[in-house]
Amino acid sequence: MNENILGIIAGVLTSISMIPQLIKVIKEKNVDDISLVMLLVLISGLSLWVWYGFKKDELPIILSNAFAVLVNISLLVSYMIYKK
Amino acid sequence: MNENILGIIAGVLTSISMIPQLIKVIKEKNVDDISLVMLLVLISGLSLWVWYGFKKDELPIILSNAFAVLVNISLLVSYMIYKK
Repeated sequence: MNENILGIIAGVLTSISMIPQLIKVIKEKNVDDISLVMLLVLISGLSLWVWYGFKKDELPIILSNAFAVLVNISLLVSYMIYKK
Repeated sequence: MNENILGIIAGVLTSISMIPQLIKVIKEKNVDDISLVMLLVLISGLSLWVWYGFKKDELPIILSNAFAVLVNISLLVSYMIYKK
């Protein structure tokens, strides 16, 4: 498989993976079983991947991680709202 | 910053991010708020990133995603055990 297509498919999957989690949280308004440390470490790491993508000039890495940062920041905001 | 060091730091952060989630699940034996679809899509995507890493011959991508696959498979096994 062409490596750019592979990177784009991989990127789409890892980017959208947190969307079902976000939908579940918004629907159930419950975040008790979700780890805040996980979210914070993940957002930091994904942001560094965006930076890495710019340095290597690799669009699949930049786009997928930038999108994943947005989804996880939404999850973090939901966490703050729904955490008892 | 050197791009390989940047990639390694980014990789370490995204790889270890699910460890606090795994510890939380094992301690509390509760996975009700975790999305199974998220886990399945994430494991598929991370596996493709490993493949991408091999094609591009980029060690930070291979190592961090392979480790993340392992952590998320552990989380999936925990999910199967603790899901009511």
